[in-house]
Amino acid sequence: MAGGRGERFWPMSRQQRPKQFLSLTGGEKTMIQLTVERLQPLIELEDIYIVTNQSYRELVKEQLPGLPAENILAEPMARNTAPCIALAAAAIANKYEDALMCVLPSDHLIKYTAMFLDVLRRAGKVAEKGENLVTIGITPTYPETGYGYIRFAPAGENGSYRVERFVEKPALTAAKEYLSSGQYLWNSGMFVWKLSTIRENFRRFLPRIYEGMEEIRAACKAKDFESTLERCFTAFPSESIDYGIMEKAQDIYVIPGSFGWDDVGSWLALERINRTNEFGNAVSGDVVTINTKDTIIRGGKRLIAAVGVEDLIVVDTEDAVLICAKDSTAEIKKVIENLKICNRNELI
Amino acid sequence: MAGGRGERFWPMSRQQRPKQFLSLTGGEKTMIQLTVERLQPLIELEDIYIVTNQSYRELVKEQLPGLPAENILAEPMARNTAPCIALAAAAIANKYEDALMCVLPSDHLIKYTAMFLDVLRRAGKVAEKGENLVTIGITPTYPETGYGYIRFAPAGENGSYRVERFVEKPALTAAKEYLSSGQYLWNSGMFVWKLSTIRENFRRFLPRIYEGMEEIRAACKAKDFESTLERCFTAFPSESIDYGIMEKAQDIYVIPGSFGWDDVGSWLALERINRTNEFGNAVSGDVVTINTKDTIIRGGKRLIAAVGVEDLIVVDTEDAVLICAKDSTAEIKKVIENLKICNRNELI
Repeated sequence: MAGGRGERFWPMSRQQRPKQFLSLTGGEKTMIQLTVERLQPLIELEDIYIVTNQSYRELVKEQLPGLPAENILAEPMARNTAPCIALAAAAIANKYEDALMCVLPSDHLIKYTAMFLDVLRRAGKVAEKGENLVTIGITPTYPETGYGYIRFAPAGENGSYRVERFVEKPALTAAKEYLSSGQYLWNSGMFVWKLSTIRENFRRFLPRIYEGMEEIRAACKAKDFESTLERCFTAFPSESIDYGIMEKAQDIYVIPGSFGWDDVGSWLALERINRTNEFGNAVSGDVVTINTKDTIIRGGKRLIAAVGVEDLIVVDTEDAVLICAKDSTAEIKKVIENLKICNRNELI
Repeated sequence: MAGGRGERFWPMSRQQRPKQFLSLTGGEKTMIQLTVERLQPLIELEDIYIVTNQSYRELVKEQLPGLPAENILAEPMARNTAPCIALAAAAIANKYEDALMCVLPSDHLIKYTAMFLDVLRRAGKVAEKGENLVTIGITPTYPETGYGYIRFAPAGENGSYRVERFVEKPALTAAKEYLSSGQYLWNSGMFVWKLSTIRENFRRFLPRIYEGMEEIRAACKAKDFESTLERCFTAFPSESIDYGIMEKAQDIYVIPGSFGWDDVGSWLALERINRTNEFGNAVSGDVVTINTKDTIIRGGKRLIAAVGVEDLIVVDTEDAVLICAKDSTAEIKKVIENLKICNRNELI
């Protein structure tokens, strides 16, 4: 899944180059390149499908040159995760009668690849055994209120647990309870299931999307593929796979992972990911800090000098500099709105 | 007087281009250009002498192309204001037997030129009448602790007041008392006197500098002028005119001025000078502010976006960005020290 248009990493991310196509974690490789690379030992490149927006097709080609062009599935418009997954399922169904399907966001960070792949393998085993939907849960490390939680029941096979229920993003008190109970995992948005299982679940819980999925599958090699896609997506409801299927279906299992996961949801992630120095600053690039604490600085080509400040986020790019209070990251999108109003599209 | 190397406007000011050679107040003209321009109705360009450091000679030529080259007096080293004024006095004495001499910093802002010139004219009248040293005092508008104060006695002629005493930079309590007493003015560092009067005062209170001044005057058209200057300045004590002469001499008068003066002493001046918007921000350049208060932003070629911050100073230049808490401007010099240690002279 690589269709996100996230505005939360402005000014580094832009409409034309959102987060998944950026290197945010220090190295040279972008999030999507890292995501594909870490799957290599388990899944061949010919079996990796990228669902993205039409406007990012060329970016995907550029960043993943080894990927077959037909594996780039370009959504004509964003319709949340259920139609995104249906599109991928249609393309896979056109190639294989049945298969194990693994759904992964392209913009998450995973530090321990071997452990991650091991979890995927075990998830595959659980998914193969019956009509199970398997989700990867993350062992929480703090009471995050920005993620959904999964309550799990006693252990099953292969390190899996039956899912008791999904919980939407909780308030802090609830999040703290979940954490201390030891009965909840974070919902990572990563799934493993048989193609046949997810199709059956679409048929049952999201019949309109199921019909579109079948149409798309049938048109996969036809001349009118693009127009079929356009027509189906226009008609699709905007629906998440969590709400549309996972919260309603039977036989949901979760496999907990502790493989150094981070969804890199905002600039604040940089201080979780990058080692901070003795004053709590997470800096990269050409930076001088004087009497500065708990500040995240992402330098570009210029020197950034921070003097006497704390709890700030500073991001320098070629044409824009952001200075944001740590507790105000949600307001970064207002800058973008402001730029839109002023028709300054080159900065968005 | 244009020899200052002020580091307080880093990253905009650099060793190679200090404050007086910058435009800080919004227009295109630099501080020194504005200083010379506002004197034009009163003093001809041929009678304006610029005392600066040798390394700024070309900058002065560039910024003041109409000024006779011989009116640029290049100090071989900085020795505070007394030697600086002695050098100017020597050059003037080489041209005129006696003259009215007006000493002005090149990096102060004055908003009401006509009123300022009127004050200078009156100061000239007072200076001509006897052996008076006249200083321009600024009517205080708040209890600033960064300036010296002048206590004045009952009024004399031409709107002048006899100076009772000079006071060094006071603590806040004292500054508040001075302000409420109505008996004190800020010491602006602007002076008017006859050439003969100041020479006599040098002879009396700073005899070593007086001797050097006479040597320099005698060498003004000689081949060994540069080496004479070098020798004299090396021997000069580093002494301010305030401490060396003004605080000791007789017949000191002050003329109060309310001509919109600001010494532009740090980035904080920008919010006094530039109108601030309803949230107390003083911004220039390409700036977007969201939920931002009491912040000074000096944009460059890039967009600066400030989100959820307050009491900050942000300055963007081609190769460096400063983010500084308003109460930490004194620590900007530590950035420069740091850069020196790292041999990053291109940024200093």
